[in-house]
Amino acid sequence: MTSTTATLRLVCFFSDYGSTDDFAGTCRAVMKRISPDVQVIDVTHGLVERDLLGGALVLRNTLPYMPDRAVHLAVVDPGVGGPRRPVALRSAGDRLFVGPDNGLLTLAADADGGVADAHLLTNEELWLSPLSATFHGRDIFAPVAARLAAGLPLDVVGVALEPAGLERLDVPSPEVTEDGIAATAVLVDRFGNVALNLSAAELEGAELGERLELDCGGERYFTRVVRTFSSVRPSDILVLIDSYGQVALAVNSGSASEVLGVVTGDRVHLRRLS
Amino acid sequence: MTSTTATLRLVCFFSDYGSTDDFAGTCRAVMKRISPDVQVIDVTHGLVERDLLGGALVLRNTLPYMPDRAVHLAVVDPGVGGPRRPVALRSAGDRLFVGPDNGLLTLAADADGGVADAHLLTNEELWLSPLSATFHGRDIFAPVAARLAAGLPLDVVGVALEPAGLERLDVPSPEVTEDGIAATAVLVDRFGNVALNLSAAELEGAELGERLELDCGGERYFTRVVRTFSSVRPSDILVLIDSYGQVALAVNSGSASEVLGVVTGDRVHLRRLS
Amino acid sequence: MTSTTATLRLVCFFSDYGSTDDFAGTCRAVMKRISPDVQVIDVTHGLVERDLLGGALVLRNTLPYMPDRAVHLAVVDPGVGGPRRPVALRSAGDRLFVGPDNGLLTLAADADGGVADAHLLTNEELWLSPLSATFHGRDIFAPVAARLAAGLPLDVVGVALEPAGLERLDVPSPEVTEDGIAATAVLVDRFGNVALNLSAAELEGAELGERLELDCGGERYFTRVVRTFSSVRPSDILVLIDSYGQVALAVNSGSASEVLGVVTGDRVHLRRLS
Repeated sequence: MTSTTATLRLVCFFSDYGSTDDFAGTCRAVMKRISPDVQVIDVTHGLVERDLLGGALVLRNTLPYMPDRAVHLAVVDPGVGGPRRPVALRSAGDRLFVGPDNGLLTLAADADGGVADAHLLTNEELWLSPLSATFHGRDIFAPVAARLAAGLPLDVVGVALEPAGLERLDVPSPEVTEDGIAATAVLVDRFGNVALNLSAAELEGAELGERLELDCGGERYFTRVVRTFSSVRPSDILVLIDSYGQVALAVNSGSASEVLGVVTGDRVHLRRLS
Repeated sequence: MTSTTATLRLVCFFSDYGSTDDFAGTCRAVMKRISPDVQVIDVTHGLVERDLLGGALVLRNTLPYMPDRAVHLAVVDPGVGGPRRPVALRSAGDRLFVGPDNGLLTLAADADGGVADAHLLTNEELWLSPLSATFHGRDIFAPVAARLAAGLPLDVVGVALEPAGLERLDVPSPEVTEDGIAATAVLVDRFGNVALNLSAAELEGAELGERLELDCGGERYFTRVVRTFSSVRPSDILVLIDSYGQVALAVNSGSASEVLGVVTGDRVHLRRLS
Repeated sequence: MTSTTATLRLVCFFSDYGSTDDFAGTCRAVMKRISPDVQVIDVTHGLVERDLLGGALVLRNTLPYMPDRAVHLAVVDPGVGGPRRPVALRSAGDRLFVGPDNGLLTLAADADGGVADAHLLTNEELWLSPLSATFHGRDIFAPVAARLAAGLPLDVVGVALEPAGLERLDVPSPEVTEDGIAATAVLVDRFGNVALNLSAAELEGAELGERLELDCGGERYFTRVVRTFSSVRPSDILVLIDSYGQVALAVNSGSASEVLGVVTGDRVHLRRLS
């Protein structure tokens, strides 16, 4: 468990622990106890409880902005204490991922060249003791992430797994329809912008034009595709190419989620104007 | 005020400053100005205003997870500007505690072997000037914590106090009744789990069995004692042994505080099924 | 772009990114990728969307508490993607400021001796690529701030600007009336305290006395000027000299904003008792 500066990795920490309790802070303290020289970047603790797809998309979307070779510690873990497995993965891009095997990690690892190595966390010597039943972030994942960041070889964390056997999420696909594209709301940010499972390239490929009709559960709006809020009027409803290259619904100076009544999981339809 | 790496302590920072204002961030900046090499762990800034007992319990519960020899800077300070005294304590376990003498610090220090040394903060040269009347976190506590973390001897902060004279909170005790245990709600987390002033050992000692009746202000629920959410159904009401070894009320995939209408300070009754 | 420890500056990061999304965390990660040795202090990510004056006042008020020579990275940017200009400034006090040229930065820089140098961010080699239209914090401001903190000379970021041509906000002035002072609510904190655009010195100069009448949109309250909550009763309505030397409206153990119905931008009147 010796480490040299050369092998130090940053820990990029994602969770649904929120900012009011000690959960994320206690995990940070645990990492500092174990590996005093390791630095932790709190990317977000605002992932939505039980929303594995939303969390997985945040991990995948932010990946290009994270330091190379980081350890990605991610916890959205509704099955904690049950049969879901604790794992550590290495992507082909040599990033490490630590967390529950519930699909949260694999979307990002697959986007980073695929899962090159997967290990079940079975080496209990690396964990805190006593082990709680409900806070594996503190007792298993943070300690293992801190040690990996300090240079511990991946195969020490536990027995090897077949990467193909890892949990993977069903990512809803946009569907090309007769007169447009149907897509699913997958993330809502604090400004109320609603990201869809639809890339800028897919929208462009559908050739719907710059002006189109947006159908949210039967309510229809005329809207336009834009790249910025600056050229539109307050309260305009927009189809925005967002900063992660996704298509999002937005309202200038307002919340699209509230104005349109759209929440994560809802299906919306973008239609060509006839 | 010289320091060497060998004497550097981490600062573990707890407060009710929240995450929307600059309060916690400005304290961090003040510590960096004074002791550039000191590292700060923001354990939580979500302590509840004026809830000294809740804050004191968070400090005590998280203590085993904090780095050894840290300086614990803690601020819940409804009496700021009044006669309550600013203090620094050393526990028998060689941890330091800095904050108001209102009971916030002593529960944790007592759990760490007791208060070995206590000092009133009277050395105004260590503070910021001018001194505000309402933000002693910034002007007194953070500067003193940063200097202690950098190696300042404790007795430089001010005159010695008798540890026995420090404020201590009344911690409500669980009460064994004819048919069970009555306990008090002491902490509610963001998931709505309600921690009671009742340890796992105390509940076990009462031999109520795995299934029992929960009485919250006259409303009665059949419930069971579990260690994890994974083996129960959504919406089940549970008595959970939480990750800090406390007994908590929980609702699977829901908020126990909302479902049961229980808030901090409420008394609940766990009864043997007849 | 080489740097030595001697030239390293801290980055003090202010934004309206909130604490639920990855926005602030992704910017931190971008800075770590670019300048691994640079330290970032998250002063606040709770600035209010589109409230440039509120953000500018927080930057100005906290300035004396920030480390000397820091890079102040500040983002409240409703005009992102439009004609507003990205800039970096150096104050006469040798602090650096990076952000949008919309008035957010100039109040603090002017308070630090004035703007000594101003540069338009035109050197695209310093930015992330591809450049998004809506997240210049990540793609322009954070990368430039990280490089400046690591020692990049200011004139490398882009062409020089005339400091006098920078955007400056209209700061509302308190107005001396026949029987008192009228002032504007400029900031509301999480405790509901309402800061006015009125300094302690200005209030004193008006010689209204310690007891006065507060008029909020026609509702009148008898109140007193205090420096701390400790000598008043719960629910008392107070005129408080706050910890930044501003006059604020406060309610002991309550929210002045809620009790008085005052929000940012509202005008209130402090009147001499007749």
